[in-house]
Amino acid sequence: MEKTKVGIIGLGTVGSGVAKILLDHGDRTARHAGRVLWLEKAAVRDLSKPRDCDLPDGVLTDSIDEVIDHPEIKVVAQLMGGIEPARSVMIRLLESGKDVVTANKALLAEHGPELFDKARELGRSIAFEASVAGGIPIIANLSQCLTSNQVTSLHGILNGTSNFILDKMHTEGAAYSDVVAEAQRLGYAEADPSMDVDGTDAAQKLAILCQLAFGARLNWRDIPRSGIDTVDLLDVNYAQEMGYKIKLLAIADLKEHGLDCEVNPALVRAGSPLGEVGGPFNAVLVKGDAVGPLFYHGQGAGQMPTASAVAADLIDTAVGRTAITFRTLGLWSDQVKGVDQADFATSTGKRYVRAMVEDSPGVLAKVTEAFGAEGISIASILQKEPLEGDTAVPLVVMTHRASEAATDRACAKIAALDACRGEPVKMWVRD
Amino acid sequence: MEKTKVGIIGLGTVGSGVAKILLDHGDRTARHAGRVLWLEKAAVRDLSKPRDCDLPDGVLTDSIDEVIDHPEIKVVAQLMGGIEPARSVMIRLLESGKDVVTANKALLAEHGPELFDKARELGRSIAFEASVAGGIPIIANLSQCLTSNQVTSLHGILNGTSNFILDKMHTEGAAYSDVVAEAQRLGYAEADPSMDVDGTDAAQKLAILCQLAFGARLNWRDIPRSGIDTVDLLDVNYAQEMGYKIKLLAIADLKEHGLDCEVNPALVRAGSPLGEVGGPFNAVLVKGDAVGPLFYHGQGAGQMPTASAVAADLIDTAVGRTAITFRTLGLWSDQVKGVDQADFATSTGKRYVRAMVEDSPGVLAKVTEAFGAEGISIASILQKEPLEGDTAVPLVVMTHRASEAATDRACAKIAALDACRGEPVKMWVRD
Ligand SMILES: NC(=O)c1ccc[n+]([C@@H]2O[C@H](COP(=O)([O-])OP(=O)(O)OC[C@H]3O[C@@H](n4cnc5c(N)ncnc54)[C@H](OP(=O)(O)O)[C@@H]3O)[C@@H](O)[C@H]2O)c1
Ligand SMILES: NC(=O)c1ccc[n+]([C@@H]2O[C@H](COP(=O)([O-])OP(=O)(O)OC[C@H]3O[C@@H](n4cnc5c(N)ncnc54)[C@H](OP(=O)(O)O)[C@@H]3O)[C@@H](O)[C@H]2O)c1
Repeated sequence: MEKTKVGIIGLGTVGSGVAKILLDHGDRTARHAGRVLWLEKAAVRDLSKPRDCDLPDGVLTDSIDEVIDHPEIKVVAQLMGGIEPARSVMIRLLESGKDVVTANKALLAEHGPELFDKARELGRSIAFEASVAGGIPIIANLSQCLTSNQVTSLHGILNGTSNFILDKMHTEGAAYSDVVAEAQRLGYAEADPSMDVDGTDAAQKLAILCQLAFGARLNWRDIPRSGIDTVDLLDVNYAQEMGYKIKLLAIADLKEHGLDCEVNPALVRAGSPLGEVGGPFNAVLVKGDAVGPLFYHGQGAGQMPTASAVAADLIDTAVGRTAITFRTLGLWSDQVKGVDQADFATSTGKRYVRAMVEDSPGVLAKVTEAFGAEGISIASILQKEPLEGDTAVPLVVMTHRASEAATDRACAKIAALDACRGEPVKMWVRD
Repeated sequence: MEKTKVGIIGLGTVGSGVAKILLDHGDRTARHAGRVLWLEKAAVRDLSKPRDCDLPDGVLTDSIDEVIDHPEIKVVAQLMGGIEPARSVMIRLLESGKDVVTANKALLAEHGPELFDKARELGRSIAFEASVAGGIPIIANLSQCLTSNQVTSLHGILNGTSNFILDKMHTEGAAYSDVVAEAQRLGYAEADPSMDVDGTDAAQKLAILCQLAFGARLNWRDIPRSGIDTVDLLDVNYAQEMGYKIKLLAIADLKEHGLDCEVNPALVRAGSPLGEVGGPFNAVLVKGDAVGPLFYHGQGAGQMPTASAVAADLIDTAVGRTAITFRTLGLWSDQVKGVDQADFATSTGKRYVRAMVEDSPGVLAKVTEAFGAEGISIASILQKEPLEGDTAVPLVVMTHRASEAATDRACAKIAALDACRGEPVKMWVRD
């Protein structure tokens, strides 16, 4: 049987998972690829670290060059994380004639155009299924299965750590800070979880998906975003009372004026597919003009789900499917004219607004007036009891559809009221 | 730009949808395939029928031979349905050097081995994404995205008509016969819906999926099955009361003793992904040993969702991905040793059993004894009021896990009781 020699750079969480699949389950790649994927070399920083997989003699090395310069290795899974040296290593791999598979969304979101142009120029390919939504094959689905559609919208829960934390806040009524600590203990959140909880990770993944779904060449930094680190348990409870869950949603909607993208905590109806995504899971709801709504749900991270995606890419690359897809799609290419990002202020939607107000006569009228003056109609108002030891009462307003800009102006007026304490909290409502 | 000339045989529901995509959205295939898919010929039976798409002059023909013998047509979407002449037309297409795309699950379930062997022998390919679960790209996901996994189980709602009917019975409390009539009026059920509601359609689709997921070469006729045509509103209501929905589930579980397959109405927990599949939708829950659970939900039929899948196959075939997948997977090949089907009697699970019994002293004891004698423990019992104008009362038993054979023996004993009216109803409980 034909043999494709494979290299791995980085044998951490993901890399060891990939090594396990290649070493323990050669029969599968043989059956599904008609060839053996042979793990020839695996490069790490520190040879003395214990590894989560049994490597045959001679495979482990602490020299990346041994992989890059190996004349028989055709495909390399580059699984080291970070921007540098990951970026320059990837360029050297391409230059030495190797096809690359990666799980590094930060690198692609940052340097996708450069890396993809380089690969095209050299006649090589980059596969990156594992970079978004872990085990959910959303990259292949967008780049191969839905190609006869115009994708019209894509809503995703793309950060498992954030979803785990929000879900715990809902089910256990625990505050953000307590749940973060638990998530770290359970290994769902890193020691420094800031990229996960501040929306960076989800925005980077959304930028990659927008490239595939809409041909949009976005800089992830231009995607308006906020994270879950500011989500108050109070709002979790009010949302729940009204039949919603708060989720960190990454959204791209194709509008007449362009592509509306954002990453924000939002209210999603309980019982809806995205509303029911629990624990550290990820999910994507894609709408195509022919296929209608398609919903995907699975594990967004973790050793074996991510390794499953990397290994599928290795197989696709070894058999030649990746080369075709890469060549025909023209990802991140100047040559492909995709949609542009829309001005966020023009996007519209229903809003959840919570203001803390002194319970004095006429306040409710002034708050509703602020919305009325902007032409925003109110779907429901909930005035809660004052919190313990406090004189202000939470006033929760759900609006009908209105523009971001108009809601912002209304909220600014409310914040300026004498009776209002601080800035009102506002979130999109997605049903 | 390169041009691939395409033919279509059959311009009914699906065929006209495919023609619309090719004719109206050439830009998409250009963008995603780097080439134009040019609709050269479309063959139908009756030239005078009105068509759901605007064809350029010279495209429509009532001669299938014009497609088969056309020297420049490379790929043909064969969308005529039925077994003959569909089978012989497909063979002639392959023999004339064309790659074929089809949505015809009945044909594949019946003649898959012959057709796939023929295609392999001739160096051609057959793509069939649209044959199972309509717009959900489950074929591509199993044959490309999950190839590094051993799939351990696959549970699907694969017949939209059945799901629509069961869902209506749940939400409207309407009897089977009333809902079927409504489904026909709305176009969700055919004039003769028997293949849909008796489990045949789902069993044919399951056989195709088992080939991909497990390499199992099943005859769909050997898959134990029953349909929803015998589901009683009574059981729908009791199931609902206990927190379940009745769904027509197609199931394949990899066990030590082989592959457990069946298509039956079953109780699925309300609120679970499969339990919440509403209307005419389809869904598939796949478990892989690396990826864990992956859930897909989308439109299982209808013109554009199905056309979306056919057109994706046309693109895959035109760019060359299908040829690779077809060659490497060895579908329905004698050469590939997959798992065998397990003996159904050895499969185990929790059961819902409803008996109609005369409300006389000691009956409950005899029923529980019947289960006890087979070593089956009872999870809960529900004794309901007698139905109007009747003396028998419904007795609903939920068992813990037991074998099919043991439950059958217990039910036979209950049926033989003087106090028992008719055969007890029994269904699997899947949570
Ligand atoms: N973990 C997940 O669930 C997950 C999911 C999706 C995507 N990803 C992405 O996958 C990538 C890898 O993640 P991970 O969790 O596996 O990371 P990790 O556990 O930190 O592993 C990184 C590996 O890279 C090696 N490495 C780092 N710098 C190196 C250098 N200069 N030379 C040689 N080897 C070097 C490390 O070697 P030593 O072991 O010797 O230190 C280690 O084996 C990241 O881009 C991440 O974003 C991860
Ligand atoms: N409908 C769905 O939602 C759906 C979903 C998934 C899969 N499928 C599968 O897709 C296939 C097509 O389904 P459909 O609903 O599109 O069927 P349909 O509406 O009945 O259309 C069948 C087409 O085939 C043509 N045809 C039949 N026999 C022919 C012959 N001997 N020579 C030339 N043309 C012939 C018919 O021509 P005339 O128009 O001239 O009669 C008609 O255009 C079937 O295998 C079905 O199982 C359908």
